[in-house]
Amino acid sequence: MPIRIAVDAMGGDYAPLEIVKGAVQAAREYSVAIQLVGNEVQIKEELAKYDTQGLDIGITHTDEVIEMGESPAKALRAKKKASIVLTVESVARGESQGLVAAGSTGAAMAASLFGLGRLPGVKRPVICCTMPTAKNPIALLDAGANSDCEPEMLYEFAIMGRIFAEYILGYENPKVGLMNIGEEEGKGNEFTKATFNILNSKKEVLNFIGNVEGRDVFTGDCQVIVCDGFVGNVILKTAEGAMTMITKLLKQEYKKSLYNMIVGLLSKKVFTGLKKRIDHEKIGGALLLGVKGISVISHGSSKAYAIKNAIRVAKEAVEKEVNDKIVEMYDQHIKAAD
Amino acid sequence: MPIRIAVDAMGGDYAPLEIVKGAVQAAREYSVAIQLVGNEVQIKEELAKYDTQGLDIGITHTDEVIEMGESPAKALRAKKKASIVLTVESVARGESQGLVAAGSTGAAMAASLFGLGRLPGVKRPVICCTMPTAKNPIALLDAGANSDCEPEMLYEFAIMGRIFAEYILGYENPKVGLMNIGEEEGKGNEFTKATFNILNSKKEVLNFIGNVEGRDVFTGDCQVIVCDGFVGNVILKTAEGAMTMITKLLKQEYKKSLYNMIVGLLSKKVFTGLKKRIDHEKIGGALLLGVKGISVISHGSSKAYAIKNAIRVAKEAVEKEVNDKIVEMYDQHIKAAD
Repeated sequence: MPIRIAVDAMGGDYAPLEIVKGAVQAAREYSVAIQLVGNEVQIKEELAKYDTQGLDIGITHTDEVIEMGESPAKALRAKKKASIVLTVESVARGESQGLVAAGSTGAAMAASLFGLGRLPGVKRPVICCTMPTAKNPIALLDAGANSDCEPEMLYEFAIMGRIFAEYILGYENPKVGLMNIGEEEGKGNEFTKATFNILNSKKEVLNFIGNVEGRDVFTGDCQVIVCDGFVGNVILKTAEGAMTMITKLLKQEYKKSLYNMIVGLLSKKVFTGLKKRIDHEKIGGALLLGVKGISVISHGSSKAYAIKNAIRVAKEAVEKEVNDKIVEMYDQHIKAAD
Repeated sequence: MPIRIAVDAMGGDYAPLEIVKGAVQAAREYSVAIQLVGNEVQIKEELAKYDTQGLDIGITHTDEVIEMGESPAKALRAKKKASIVLTVESVARGESQGLVAAGSTGAAMAASLFGLGRLPGVKRPVICCTMPTAKNPIALLDAGANSDCEPEMLYEFAIMGRIFAEYILGYENPKVGLMNIGEEEGKGNEFTKATFNILNSKKEVLNFIGNVEGRDVFTGDCQVIVCDGFVGNVILKTAEGAMTMITKLLKQEYKKSLYNMIVGLLSKKVFTGLKKRIDHEKIGGALLLGVKGISVISHGSSKAYAIKNAIRVAKEAVEKEVNDKIVEMYDQHIKAAD
């Protein structure tokens, strides 16, 4: 039986159009079965646009949707049949092996936590984000699941990040670094100083290389960077903001003269190449690690290409048995120490 | 009498060559008197390269220098005559009205704190960094002076940031935002939730617009962004890292084919224009606000152009009486509330 991925067809700025489109592409390209969750009429309308012959695409109907602005906790209580809830249920019941959601991150996270439960031993699930770098992509976690953290939690994040970097990103013995504001031991705030000591005491288990700084996120030299969810989220959005600014200013420069305009046109090919290197759409989505099941959370602005890649990530996480690997490493290093 | 700025001639990766060069340029361009602090022989050698006729450039000799790798606290205890110490002393004694230092940030900050003392009422001085944006530059603070903060401290940072944004950046009634991981009230970690309530209770005094996110740093829509020194430092370095990555990847793209190479050559003019818009060298340096005297801390990699601009910032801060304005606003809003 092929791996089946449940997809919240109603989540995201371009739902259901781009979500269904990406799901069809993924079904074709990755030979994966898809369960689309949402308004059946709308989903069928979208599906009718494509050749779906030979593809295994099911539909779970629901009329309820959690909107982007809603409080996740309240919305989940009120909308028991929300598309994100039923998407998660499909995995919880074993009908699908993984899920992809591009709607409200808070709702997707909360629904996954409540609906799937935590892996044995895992205290706090974590959002593991793949970051583009000057070399190959790396893992940054926590990207926003836990805005207040205890130092011990980052040891767990480091373990989950290592598994992700090894089995999904393909690094042999990836390096783990602690996000800090100075490289030397003893730098940082109270939180990172305490965290450093914990990670450093597990140096060999983690391949911990010490503190890293904001600029090290993009060199690609450290493949797993851990921090609390507040800092991780700020990093993510700061990087996004800096790149948006560059794009905006560059567009302004290209408009400044005829010469610049021509250079701008000639440069399109170069920028297409550059975009490929840093495209978050290629990355597809972030994994919520530590829950019983594979949950990929995509950007709200995801279009078909991003959704297709998110489904690929979910499929790979299932195939590579990422969760089994996490449980194994927990058993070996965390439970054994208890 | 002209304003005199003391400059640590021995601080920074390109000291004393680029420091002296920048100081001479500033003396000429901004009609400012300069006090160069460091090895007299080396400084004179550098000065001999330029036409300094009619310029008021003094030298304070010392052989001691605090190196980048040294622990600031230890180094300051051991090297009582370090160039940064004597640079600060020149301001403390009133011989100079401001200082510029491009050496160890920690040492410059500690020396300024100990040597100048705090402005009346100010509990924690703060590093106020000017950030380039898609519109005009904005103020981000704390950029690294206080890695652990209490929520109340950010009210003080907001006051100092407002004065900076008004008198140095030239905004009328600048907007103040709190760095957070969501825009709605109630978002964030324990620290930002508590801070939000404090800033919101001073909404009118501060022109507080609420939470902002990482991506808002670069839009230019909010002119003063406050956060703790850990988060601020991470933002600074993340933005730097993201831009370095783009530059690196773009250079790689330009090497990929003859076509790309030619486009690369043709693009030089466009990128010069872009660089001007986001150049941290033009910004010169960050102000350490809250100390009795004007202290500008520049990047360790500063060359002459950055030093010249740092001296301009110091001069402007003296002219605009930034410190008097801070004390006034403290008297009015903080002391009055005590």
